[in-house]
Amino acid sequence: MRVLGVDPGLTRCGVGVVEGRPGRPCTLIDYTVVRSDPGDDLAHRLLNLDLALTELVARHRPDAVAVERVFSQHNVRTVMGTAQASAVAILAGARAGLPVQSYTPSEVKAAVTGSGTADKAQVTAMVTRLLRLDAPPRPADAADALALAICHVWRGGIKSKLAAATAAAVAGRNGGRL
Amino acid sequence: MRVLGVDPGLTRCGVGVVEGRPGRPCTLIDYTVVRSDPGDDLAHRLLNLDLALTELVARHRPDAVAVERVFSQHNVRTVMGTAQASAVAILAGARAGLPVQSYTPSEVKAAVTGSGTADKAQVTAMVTRLLRLDAPPRPADAADALALAICHVWRGGIKSKLAAATAAAVAGRNGGRL
Repeated sequence: MRVLGVDPGLTRCGVGVVEGRPGRPCTLIDYTVVRSDPGDDLAHRLLNLDLALTELVARHRPDAVAVERVFSQHNVRTVMGTAQASAVAILAGARAGLPVQSYTPSEVKAAVTGSGTADKAQVTAMVTRLLRLDAPPRPADAADALALAICHVWRGGIKSKLAAATAAAVAGRNGGRL
Repeated sequence: MRVLGVDPGLTRCGVGVVEGRPGRPCTLIDYTVVRSDPGDDLAHRLLNLDLALTELVARHRPDAVAVERVFSQHNVRTVMGTAQASAVAILAGARAGLPVQSYTPSEVKAAVTGSGTADKAQVTAMVTRLLRLDAPPRPADAADALALAICHVWRGGIKSKLAAATAAAVAGRNGGRL
């Protein structure tokens, strides 16, 4: 399965695409960082990000999109931009008809390093090793997005299947109302 | 000018459309509340909201979209959903090529009631009076969206013209890079 991972951010949004199967090594397809200028109008920034992510989804035709879940522990001002960027990323997947799954930072860290409290350097080192790259991904923001994509491949899309089943059950309970 | 105002929310998103000119009474065109079930998958909820807002923009063909600016003072968990809904609303306007302007709750309250600290009942009462409605808008969530739209009409889109000029200046300074 091919997975497009997104580490959401308004100023720097990491995107990583990998292909693989649960329990097998993954292959790197692509990675990039979508940037926008903090001085720009918010509508321009969100539209830019939407165009870039929609184009990446169309180009790489992933089977699923994995997005890092936004947490409230951070600086509240930053969290709002990150929440807005994550909405754009989730929409880019959903509009393409793809399953979209969120993972917490600790789930991603645990998947690629074995520890939910691993630091950024450890995650980057493991992503570099797992994808058999000659050097760590540059810019570094892309490493987290690749880790997210690897995490989703290895979990075999299980969470998204559960989510789909739950959504179907909820829809049934509500008489099909979305 | 015709303005579509959005009071963003994931569970209840108020939308109001009015037409008018600065300093003149506004006319009500439409209002509604887009709802989603908190038990549903986030991707479904955002996609639903995107489809609904995109359809409303296409149907009413406003000249501008006004969205309430999300504030960090509230409960952080709620703020993240509101921030994500606001991103969907801003994108729906930007994707249609429309100017999108944000207003703080106090700017909106000041515009329609004369006081930045007016309560919800006062805003609803003034919206009802200003649009010459026989009864307050139901559901009440729509009143804030209508107040936003009235606020934008009365400010004559001045803020969005300033924003566009600033954006153009920034783009020029950066050699046209967005």
